[in-house]
Amino acid sequence: MDCFFTFVSATNLALIVLSKNQINFISSLQRKAIRAKNNLFVVEGIKMVEELIVSSIKINNIFATSAWVDANQAVVSSIGSQLILVSDIELQRISSLSTPNEVLAVCEIKHNEFSFLNCKNKITLVLDNVQIPGNLGTIIRIADWFGVQNIVCSVDTVDVYNPKVIQATMGSFMRVNVFYKTLDALLKEAHLSGISIYGAALKGNNIYSATNLDKGIIVLGNESKGISEEVLKLCNTQISIPHFSIDTINGPDSLNVAVAAGIICSEFTRRNVKIDS
Amino acid sequence: MDCFFTFVSATNLALIVLSKNQINFISSLQRKAIRAKNNLFVVEGIKMVEELIVSSIKINNIFATSAWVDANQAVVSSIGSQLILVSDIELQRISSLSTPNEVLAVCEIKHNEFSFLNCKNKITLVLDNVQIPGNLGTIIRIADWFGVQNIVCSVDTVDVYNPKVIQATMGSFMRVNVFYKTLDALLKEAHLSGISIYGAALKGNNIYSATNLDKGIIVLGNESKGISEEVLKLCNTQISIPHFSIDTINGPDSLNVAVAAGIICSEFTRRNVKIDS
Repeated sequence: MDCFFTFVSATNLALIVLSKNQINFISSLQRKAIRAKNNLFVVEGIKMVEELIVSSIKINNIFATSAWVDANQAVVSSIGSQLILVSDIELQRISSLSTPNEVLAVCEIKHNEFSFLNCKNKITLVLDNVQIPGNLGTIIRIADWFGVQNIVCSVDTVDVYNPKVIQATMGSFMRVNVFYKTLDALLKEAHLSGISIYGAALKGNNIYSATNLDKGIIVLGNESKGISEEVLKLCNTQISIPHFSIDTINGPDSLNVAVAAGIICSEFTRRNVKIDS
Repeated sequence: MDCFFTFVSATNLALIVLSKNQINFISSLQRKAIRAKNNLFVVEGIKMVEELIVSSIKINNIFATSAWVDANQAVVSSIGSQLILVSDIELQRISSLSTPNEVLAVCEIKHNEFSFLNCKNKITLVLDNVQIPGNLGTIIRIADWFGVQNIVCSVDTVDVYNPKVIQATMGSFMRVNVFYKTLDALLKEAHLSGISIYGAALKGNNIYSATNLDKGIIVLGNESKGISEEVLKLCNTQISIPHFSIDTINGPDSLNVAVAAGIICSEFTRRNVKIDS
């Protein structure tokens, strides 16, 4: 794509006043359709941008305050003319955060090709219609922690490049591949390839006593509805985290989907890797 | 306290138009100081209010739209004059949610007395300066799931009656006791009482291979700083969830504190209860 920004060279780091069009454009990247059209997304905050600079993600522009530039002299020259010095007020105007944190980067969306080879002898998470950005972000962070390299989302799952998702990943989106696929076709193909498919459901096999938890695909569902009926049918085994609530009548209905993802990844990992003490 | 609301009897369920003072008062319960001063807090949404009505929590007023009243005829008479019929617009005015859900209840804060007997032969969670409302709410939901009856928070932990906390508990705040205490004194006393104290830290004993995970107190720390140095010193054993990230250099720093709470509660429970398959 053509670069939207034609700034005066910023290598001398003069403070740039963004035009209304530029502010509107960056703010509009909070919307999925605009991100998809321009193949761009936004990453904010000191720690995430620090990781971003050494990652394989292509950065179009970094908008930073003088505080950030002063603290990051070592990398400023390597960023070159992509670095735009802005005031705190300008940063506030383009940020999606209530308290922007010194720096915001506009990056190119990376398109990974999904292959079933990715799923062989590995744990892969499949998300069926997860809607809350913080949940997807937290699940990506969990995947990163447990060495899960691939997450496949149903096409109606919240967009990974939603700024709230990116924020909740705490940088893990740079290390975990996220794909969007029609789950019906994906799971049928996985089944033909002999990959085990586990569905997290409320009435499945007790995850603690189940004996057959091997590597494979783990499906997690929507926050209120769980896994859809059609997708659940394609799971070989339904698994559950049993509850131990003292109130067996009015007890809790469910765990948060990201917490469930964490517990399930923990249980699968504990069983499938050599644990060093 | 004196009842703030002096409504025309609502037993005939005439639509009430709230005064500006009344709207301001209910909205002001989003602030901790106002909640503490009036000993009141707010619960919103169909499912939570449904559970609330049959709980032991004292309800001062329920503000409901006609849609809620129509769907809840069976309980309407038992609520009596505490029920206030309001329009959707009025509900929007008193709600802390961007999309209010038919009903809002103003309830009395319950003051439980903490006793060390609560901790004997049980798992108790202790939170050191947890700040994000969604995290505390999710941890309360996890505690409920795993039968943890008591959570003790440091006095600088976010208030359990913060509307975002209440919302994230999905009703579990009704079944889990939450106390606020100075942790230093609490943990010293626990130690003298022979209660094991585990601290979740980044460099503790691998939780999967640790052999000594018995019931006791589990301490979890602040979102970015973890457990404070002074509190960590009072833990008998430091425990960690090991990470398996493929990137050992730029891998993730930590797990979300609620996810960590879920995994730790799962691991302790798995080891300490008879698991039925």
